[in-house]
Amino acid sequence: MSTPKPSTFPRNTWYVAAKAAEVQDQPLGRQICGERMVFYRAQEGRIAAVEDFCPHRGAPLSLGRVCEGKLVCGYHGLEMGCDGKTIAMPGQRVRGFPAIKSYAVEERYGFVWVWPGDREQADAALIPQLQWHDNPEWAYDGGLFHIKADYRLMIDNLMDLTHETYVHATSIGQAEIDETPCKTEVHGEAEVVTSRFMQDIPAPPFWQMALRSNGLADDVNVDRWQICRFTPPSHVMIEVGVAHAGQGGYEAADAHKVYSVVVDFITPETDGSMWYFWGMARKFNPGDAAVTEQIRAGQHKIFSEDLEMLELQQRNLADYPERQLLKLNIDAGGVQSRKIIERLIADEQAMPVLQAAVA
Amino acid sequence: MSTPKPSTFPRNTWYVAAKAAEVQDQPLGRQICGERMVFYRAQEGRIAAVEDFCPHRGAPLSLGRVCEGKLVCGYHGLEMGCDGKTIAMPGQRVRGFPAIKSYAVEERYGFVWVWPGDREQADAALIPQLQWHDNPEWAYDGGLFHIKADYRLMIDNLMDLTHETYVHATSIGQAEIDETPCKTEVHGEAEVVTSRFMQDIPAPPFWQMALRSNGLADDVNVDRWQICRFTPPSHVMIEVGVAHAGQGGYEAADAHKVYSVVVDFITPETDGSMWYFWGMARKFNPGDAAVTEQIRAGQHKIFSEDLEMLELQQRNLADYPERQLLKLNIDAGGVQSRKIIERLIADEQAMPVLQAAVA
Amino acid sequence: MSTPKPSTFPRNTWYVAAKAAEVQDQPLGRQICGERMVFYRAQEGRIAAVEDFCPHRGAPLSLGRVCEGKLVCGYHGLEMGCDGKTIAMPGQRVRGFPAIKSYAVEERYGFVWVWPGDREQADAALIPQLQWHDNPEWAYDGGLFHIKADYRLMIDNLMDLTHETYVHATSIGQAEIDETPCKTEVHGEAEVVTSRFMQDIPAPPFWQMALRSNGLADDVNVDRWQICRFTPPSHVMIEVGVAHAGQGGYEAADAHKVYSVVVDFITPETDGSMWYFWGMARKFNPGDAAVTEQIRAGQHKIFSEDLEMLELQQRNLADYPERQLLKLNIDAGGVQSRKIIERLIADEQAMPVLQAAVA
Repeated sequence: MSTPKPSTFPRNTWYVAAKAAEVQDQPLGRQICGERMVFYRAQEGRIAAVEDFCPHRGAPLSLGRVCEGKLVCGYHGLEMGCDGKTIAMPGQRVRGFPAIKSYAVEERYGFVWVWPGDREQADAALIPQLQWHDNPEWAYDGGLFHIKADYRLMIDNLMDLTHETYVHATSIGQAEIDETPCKTEVHGEAEVVTSRFMQDIPAPPFWQMALRSNGLADDVNVDRWQICRFTPPSHVMIEVGVAHAGQGGYEAADAHKVYSVVVDFITPETDGSMWYFWGMARKFNPGDAAVTEQIRAGQHKIFSEDLEMLELQQRNLADYPERQLLKLNIDAGGVQSRKIIERLIADEQAMPVLQAAVA
Repeated sequence: MSTPKPSTFPRNTWYVAAKAAEVQDQPLGRQICGERMVFYRAQEGRIAAVEDFCPHRGAPLSLGRVCEGKLVCGYHGLEMGCDGKTIAMPGQRVRGFPAIKSYAVEERYGFVWVWPGDREQADAALIPQLQWHDNPEWAYDGGLFHIKADYRLMIDNLMDLTHETYVHATSIGQAEIDETPCKTEVHGEAEVVTSRFMQDIPAPPFWQMALRSNGLADDVNVDRWQICRFTPPSHVMIEVGVAHAGQGGYEAADAHKVYSVVVDFITPETDGSMWYFWGMARKFNPGDAAVTEQIRAGQHKIFSEDLEMLELQQRNLADYPERQLLKLNIDAGGVQSRKIIERLIADEQAMPVLQAAVA
Repeated sequence: MSTPKPSTFPRNTWYVAAKAAEVQDQPLGRQICGERMVFYRAQEGRIAAVEDFCPHRGAPLSLGRVCEGKLVCGYHGLEMGCDGKTIAMPGQRVRGFPAIKSYAVEERYGFVWVWPGDREQADAALIPQLQWHDNPEWAYDGGLFHIKADYRLMIDNLMDLTHETYVHATSIGQAEIDETPCKTEVHGEAEVVTSRFMQDIPAPPFWQMALRSNGLADDVNVDRWQICRFTPPSHVMIEVGVAHAGQGGYEAADAHKVYSVVVDFITPETDGSMWYFWGMARKFNPGDAAVTEQIRAGQHKIFSEDLEMLELQQRNLADYPERQLLKLNIDAGGVQSRKIIERLIADEQAMPVLQAAVA
C-alpha cells in the first residue's frame, strides 16, 4: 500500500540501453530509468544486465570483469550470475547472499534493449521491427548523445519538424516547412503520426546531396515529405525524402526519389536527463561508405544544434514549473505522444501488486 | 496576501545589466536579480529586454536571433515584441498567447541599465549622472567579472579601502592607509560617503605612474585622498588622487594633482552571485591609449585579487550563518550602505499590491 | 541539552592533517572533520591551527600571510594568535573581539597532527609511535589523495587485503591470497589485527623486486605475510613481507626476508570525503633513493586503482542507504574497526557538557 513516487516514464517496456558494440569484453555501467545497471556478455556472448551493485559491499560491478561468461566483481571477486544470484566467491559460501535485480535484455538490430520493469512481463516480440537492419538495400549509421533534459522534450522536438527552419537553417531547413500545415493522427495507444507533404519546392542542401549521390538531378523542384512516427515508450522514426516534382511524391517509383528514415531511440536516464540514440537508415546508394560518413557527420552536427536548446529549455521549465506551455497544432505530435506515455504510466501505477513485486 | 520570499536586493531601481557593446546583433541572455532576461536591439537599435522564456514551449529566446528589430525564437520562429507580447508565429494566430514580462531598459554612458521591478515605476531620470562620459577631458575603460558572492560583500569591500594595504600591497597599498582614520557620512537614503585624507606621504607605485604620465614629479611626497561614494542600489564611485604635498590636497589646482574615479556597478545575479562592472575614469592624459590600457590591465589584476577573497568569504558566511560579524569604524561605509539597501527592500515589501502587479 | 548531529567520526582524537612540508611560509587551509582549519607556523616554526574564519568579517585566514609568527588576515590585516584570540588590528582596539576556535596540533614524524575536538583533552602522548621515523635502517616515502568517499570505506579496504587479487592483479595480487584464510583479533578498544600467512608460494612482482633489491634470490618460493593493524581513530599499519620458504616466515632472520610497513593515515574531511595519507616504510636497502621512488610510484599507481572503486561504492551506498551489506569473515577487520569507532563516537556523544564546551 505504499505510494510510489510519480514517474515520468513507463518501466514495463523496451528501451534501447546501448549500441551492441559498446558491450564487448568489458562490462558497461549505465543508468536507465533511474536505475544503475551493468550490461555484459554472459555465456556464448549473450547479453545480460543486472543491478550495478555488488551484494557484498555495494561496489559497482561495472568496474569488474567478465570471466567465462560470469561477471566478476573487481573488488573481492564475487561471481554474479545473469539472474542476479551470486554464483561463487573465493572462500565463501554464497547460498544466503541476497539477490540483486536482474533485467530482461535483448540484443537486436545492433542495439541492446532493456526492460527496466518486471522481467516476467518482458516479451521480446514487443521490440519494434526495423526493416532496414541487415538488409543490403539499406545503409545505417548513427551515434549517441547524453543530454541533460527530460526525454519527453526530445520527443516534442522530433514530432514537430517545424523547428528545422530555425535551428537547422543551413542544412535541412527551408521556409516551405513553416508554410505547409502538418497533420497529426493517433492510432490508439500504438502510434502517433505527424506528417507534412510539400509540393514542387526547391530541395534544401541535404537533399540535393542525396539526389546527386543517387544519380538524380539536384537542380529541379521536388515534392518533399516528413512523416514522424512515435511509438511508445519513446521511439521516433521519421520517414523523410524527396521525389522529382510531379512523379507521385511519397508514392513515386524508386527511380524518381531518394528517401531515408531518421531513427531515434530516446531513453530516460533520470527524470531530467536522457540517452539519445540517433541515426539514419537510407535506401539510396547504400554501399557508399563515404556517403554514410558524410550523413553521420551531418546528423551529428544537426543534432548537436538541438542539445543546447533542449538543455536550456529544461532549465527554464525547471525554474518555472507552474507555467502552462502552449499546445499549438504544430505541437500536436508531441502532445499526443505524451498522452500515450501518461496512460502507460497510469496503467503501471494502477497495478500496486505487480509494482511491489518489481521493487 | 502572499508572503514574498525575503529578498536581498531592491527591484524597483536601476542596475547595470551589460556593457552596451555586449549587445550587438545577437541577443544576450543574462540573469539579473534572479530573473533570466534577454537583451537585444529592437527597432532602430533601441535596447530592449524581456524574459528569456518563449511563451510557446519555454525555449530560451537568447538562443534566437534578431530580425528587423524583432526577437525571433530559435526553436519555432515565434516573433517576440519588446513589450513581451508575441507579434507573430509561422502558421499561427498569436492573439491568445500569454505575454511574458518585459523590462524597462535604457542605454546610457556605454552601459545597458535595467529596472527589474515594476516597469511602470521606472524613471530614466533616476539613472545616475556620469560626468566623465563623452567628455574629451576624461578617459574611461573597464571590465566585467562574474563573482560567486553576495553583491553586498563587494559593497563592503569597496566602501573600505583599508584592505588595499593587504590585498593590493604592491600596487596601491601603503601603510599610511591603515594609519589614517576614515570618516563616514550618511546623506539620508541618497548617499554614503567614506573618506580618508593622507598628508605628506610617499606616492605608491600606481600614483607615481600617474604623476609621471601627467608630467609631474613622482619622487616627492604627496597628499592622497580616497572618497568612496555609495548610491543605491549598489553603485560605488571612488574619487582617488594625489597632489604634490602642500598644494591644497584634494582642493589643489589641476597643475599639481592627478585624480580619477574608480567606477563600480555591482549587480546581483542571484542571492549568492553578482556581476561586477569595474572601471576607471581619469582626468589626466586622457588621449594616451597606452595609459588607458595600462590602467585597465592593472585594475584587472587588482580586482582579480579580490575575487578569491570574496568567494571564500561567501562560503564561510554560508557555512556559519549564525555568526555575528564585527562592525568597526572601517566597516561603517558598508554597514551604512546596507542599512539603506534594507530600507529600500522593506519599502518594496510593504507594497503588496504593487508587488502582486509585478509578479 | 541540544541534540548534536550524529557524527561519523570521533573528534577527541589525533588525525593527520597534513604532511609537515605542506605548511611552510604560507598558511594552509584544509577542512578536517567538517571544520575549516588553517595551519601555519607560529613563533620559532611551531605548528599552529585555528578556524579558517577571521572574526572581523569572516574572510578565510588561509588567504593571509604569516608575519613574525602571527597569522595576518589578508583582507584587513587583523593579527590572529594561535589561541584564536586577536592580537592586534590596524587602528582598532581588539580586546572585545570574539575568539575563534583554536586546535591542539603537533608536528611529529613529518606529519601535522590535529585534535579537532576539545583541546583541553588533547594529549600528545596519545599520538602513535612510528619506529621507522628518523631511523637510518628504514626508508619512508608517501603521498596524499583526496577521495570523495566516507573514510570508513578506506578502513574496510585496508583491513581486508583480499581485494589485492582483483584490484591489483599485476603488482601485488595473487590467487593464494584468496585461498588462505585470514584471522581477525580485537584487542579491546586499542587495536584490530587481521593477519594472513601464506606458505611456500611464488613471490608476486612487487616482492620479486624487493628481494632483488636486497640481494636475495627472487626465483624461489617464499612465505608471505600480511598483518593489518587498525588503531583508532583511523590509522592502518600493514606489516607485509616475504621470506625464502622454510626459513621461519615472519620470524625468519633478516638475511632471509624483506619486509615493510604500509602506512595509512585516513582523515575525514566531511561525512562523505577524506584525506588519505599513504606511504611505505621499508627496512630493506633504505639508502637507495631509486628504490624509494620506484616504490612510491608503484604505490601511487596501486592506490589510484582503489580511488574510483571507493568513490563509486560511496555513490551506490548513498543511492541505497537502506540496503544491508554482507559481513563475511574477510570483512571482519573492517567490521571490528568500525565497532571501535562507533563506541568512541557514542562515548563522546554521552558527554553533553563537554560537547557544549567544544561547540
